[in-house]
Amino acid sequence: MVFIGIDLGGTKIAAGITDKAGKIIAQASAATVAQRPYQEVVRDMAACSLKALEQAALTIDDVGAIGVGIPGIADNGTGTVVFCTNLGWHDIPLREELQKYINKPVFIDNDATVAGLAESIAGVSRGASSSVFLTLGTGVGGGIIINGKPWTGAHGVASELGHLTMEVDGIPCTCGKDGCLERYCSATALIRMAREAVSLHPNSLILQRAGGKPEGIDGRTVIDCAKEGDPAAMKVFDRYTKYLALAINTVISFLDPEVIVLGGGISHAGKFLLDAVQEKLPRYLMFKTMPYSRLELAVLGNNAGIIGASLLGMMMEEGNRL
Amino acid sequence: MVFIGIDLGGTKIAAGITDKAGKIIAQASAATVAQRPYQEVVRDMAACSLKALEQAALTIDDVGAIGVGIPGIADNGTGTVVFCTNLGWHDIPLREELQKYINKPVFIDNDATVAGLAESIAGVSRGASSSVFLTLGTGVGGGIIINGKPWTGAHGVASELGHLTMEVDGIPCTCGKDGCLERYCSATALIRMAREAVSLHPNSLILQRAGGKPEGIDGRTVIDCAKEGDPAAMKVFDRYTKYLALAINTVISFLDPEVIVLGGGISHAGKFLLDAVQEKLPRYLMFKTMPYSRLELAVLGNNAGIIGASLLGMMMEEGNRL
Repeated sequence: MVFIGIDLGGTKIAAGITDKAGKIIAQASAATVAQRPYQEVVRDMAACSLKALEQAALTIDDVGAIGVGIPGIADNGTGTVVFCTNLGWHDIPLREELQKYINKPVFIDNDATVAGLAESIAGVSRGASSSVFLTLGTGVGGGIIINGKPWTGAHGVASELGHLTMEVDGIPCTCGKDGCLERYCSATALIRMAREAVSLHPNSLILQRAGGKPEGIDGRTVIDCAKEGDPAAMKVFDRYTKYLALAINTVISFLDPEVIVLGGGISHAGKFLLDAVQEKLPRYLMFKTMPYSRLELAVLGNNAGIIGASLLGMMMEEGNRL
Repeated sequence: MVFIGIDLGGTKIAAGITDKAGKIIAQASAATVAQRPYQEVVRDMAACSLKALEQAALTIDDVGAIGVGIPGIADNGTGTVVFCTNLGWHDIPLREELQKYINKPVFIDNDATVAGLAESIAGVSRGASSSVFLTLGTGVGGGIIINGKPWTGAHGVASELGHLTMEVDGIPCTCGKDGCLERYCSATALIRMAREAVSLHPNSLILQRAGGKPEGIDGRTVIDCAKEGDPAAMKVFDRYTKYLALAINTVISFLDPEVIVLGGGISHAGKFLLDAVQEKLPRYLMFKTMPYSRLELAVLGNNAGIIGASLLGMMMEEGNRL
């Protein structure tokens, strides 16, 4: 028995076949082209899945279930995508549409949640009963695993960790609120802070590396320059990691998971990021002498989407959900 | 079979006998006198329990287990109180000491957690699979119930909801951090805001009701004056309920429980508080058209401590814990 995992992104559809341990056997991808009618996107999701199955020399009969990770929220009762802002989807009957091509059980969940599930079964938080996955990308996403199972809340709106208030009346957020956590801890936030810094320090290495154009600065530019000791970049990175340490303390003070996993683009800064956050964290802990969550970097990278979606399908099909 | 629930506070020890549904059969109390050696405090905890048992015409043989709620954190593996700042306790062998008097299984947890458990079994969140209890008192405490059971985290430091960062570099907190949620949502915060207000508006009804002395202002003064339409009090209350709505959104965006219960001194403002928060909440929700947690006022009052401790004992003894 294998499982199909589909990672539906704003720009790319990636589908894969995994075994029960989350090992990818085959995969295929296609462009999302989000502005198309949803039926066409779903058709390509099915086509990628079937192509991967064929590559693995398997058939639909070998498939136990299909899991889908989406950048939004889903209702597994009805099998619909409730919201998916990137794709402009609202109340899309994804399960029904996908089953026209592959008539297997379909389960859908948030992309950060399935990535967290992937890490908790096949990645760095493997074996942990509870874990929280934080994606540090354009925004900040959260995936919560409790008792080994994804937790999406009583109404499906849990783990939106990017939208906890971190600053009352702070920086306006895309969600309509102000001062949300992702305005301080996302790659977008790091870039904003770097642009502010170069306007004050035009001689910074950051601006040089960005070809003299503030709009050319990305997360990697800032991190590379901080690693090389550029004072402006170091200051920006120091501020960013302070915010991140505060966010991590918020996760600890709320849920106290066994492991906290950092994923997404910024996590590619690796040990440089982890060390900086680890060093700041003790200052922000409530109980300074108590043990606390192990902090780790995600290890599954882009495959976390496929693996997690696939494991979601397996887990839900087994009625194993929390 | 009955259970003993002990609510250990900084000023008062309350012990009660309950049935399996959390109904109090008898209770007794004594002063804590926190500066005494812990052995004396524990001796009085046992004495109150035995007195309540006697009142109920029961004996130790009728007791299934003892639960204790403490204003701190405990380790149920060892039966010790790890921290209890109010009492100056640190690594106190509470189980061992209490069993010298009553040789029954002893389980210990945070007071807000047991109060949340009480409400979730015998109170306003009865029947909810997930709930979060917020105590709005001198500080802000949190109790998290997941799948009907208390969640205290992988290291016992979860549900410290008063110490989530709500304002980076905000008001210094007793915990050593700055800008913690309880600096904006506790009774202490409401009083601080009122004192600031009367320094600007000395003609406010608040100051009059406090006998002309800012130090005479308490939470009830502010709420009573706001109810009566005093402009300064209404403004303070409006600010306070904005902070509380933001905090509630943080609970929803993190855990999305079925019910959120407001307890503690400030919750005695009743419908006046609930209506003000309900009205503000939609503005701060991430998904404005999705259903979200039901917001309720605690109904068990001071009995929540005894009831929740007793139910904790019952649940732990039944090996029922998450």
